[in-house]
Amino acid sequence: MEGDQRTAEITDKRLLRGARTRATVLRQAVDIASLDGLEGLSFGRLAADTGLSKAGIQTLFRTKEALQLAAVDYARDRFVAAVVEPARSEPHGVARLRALIEHWMVYAETPLFTGGCFRVATMAEYDSKPGPIRDALFRDQRDWVRLLARELRAAAAAGEIAELDADLAAFQIDAVLCATNTALRLGDPEAADRARRIVEGFLAPA
Amino acid sequence: MEGDQRTAEITDKRLLRGARTRATVLRQAVDIASLDGLEGLSFGRLAADTGLSKAGIQTLFRTKEALQLAAVDYARDRFVAAVVEPARSEPHGVARLRALIEHWMVYAETPLFTGGCFRVATMAEYDSKPGPIRDALFRDQRDWVRLLARELRAAAAAGEIAELDADLAAFQIDAVLCATNTALRLGDPEAADRARRIVEGFLAPA
Repeated sequence: MEGDQRTAEITDKRLLRGARTRATVLRQAVDIASLDGLEGLSFGRLAADTGLSKAGIQTLFRTKEALQLAAVDYARDRFVAAVVEPARSEPHGVARLRALIEHWMVYAETPLFTGGCFRVATMAEYDSKPGPIRDALFRDQRDWVRLLARELRAAAAAGEIAELDADLAAFQIDAVLCATNTALRLGDPEAADRARRIVEGFLAPA
Repeated sequence: MEGDQRTAEITDKRLLRGARTRATVLRQAVDIASLDGLEGLSFGRLAADTGLSKAGIQTLFRTKEALQLAAVDYARDRFVAAVVEPARSEPHGVARLRALIEHWMVYAETPLFTGGCFRVATMAEYDSKPGPIRDALFRDQRDWVRLLARELRAAAAAGEIAELDADLAAFQIDAVLCATNTALRLGDPEAADRARRIVEGFLAPA
């Protein structure tokens, strides 16, 4: 019994250590990818940057592609935590949309990742490369655009804004946010205000 | 005299051969960059891809950065020849704008470069990296957005469309075209029509 308990404790500690190592590696991985793209990731570079052993990182992630996919998921989770979750306290419609845009602006202006928006940085790298990484990036973009469209539809249904093609407007808002991310990286001082003005154009009262 | 003439001929041939080699290398360089980014360029890879000698290519371009900048200029020139020049036969305003968008659509649907729009592919790579390459990419984007804004202003001045903030609209149209390039790479069958519908929204009669 005592032996069993000790084995269980050791297993717990190992799992905990594995999870911590995983988070340390992925934090660094998304920073690298936001600057140099997902192709810039390698077990050797991550070992050098984090001080962890290359063999240990390799054991955790096995292949470069598995590491890249884990980085995409990690970046998505942090985006959701920074932008989507905090907006959930607002009611559906215009209020939630404005909250999403404001949280996105903080995310892009003082970026979670060194190179700014993770999706903008990596989508251009993978848009011509079919495979699981492109699929994962595209899935995250589609979910985000659908979220914007859902709130636009809620706003129109509640009579807060004029009737509009919500999918078309959501596509435009996402396109403007991506372009704004680039403008922010380039130090354009008008980038944030311009994006707000464009979004407000879609939110004009009915 | 005869000797001078022969020297001149040899010089001409050398210059011609240099120019041809340069074009061969740059054609390949923009294809590589549109897929793998400008960082993906190397003298060795270009030599392997074109069958030219690595030393010869290195003599022509000297440094990797000079090669990258030459690739940016080459891509810009081909964009101007494919999109901007053919639209010049249309009068300023709505007609020229529609022509620019249609030529852009051909450029993006059956791309000049393997990886699609060169600027979208490379801007995300360089937006967080200050230096001459980012400056060159940003200059080309600014020129293109200014061109769109000029035609929107001409359209409004001629009463073809309602008064609008031309710079804001041009920023939005460019953002939509960049997002459309990504959607085309992902094989989205609605990408082109959606972009046309969005642009027409800015061209509604006064």
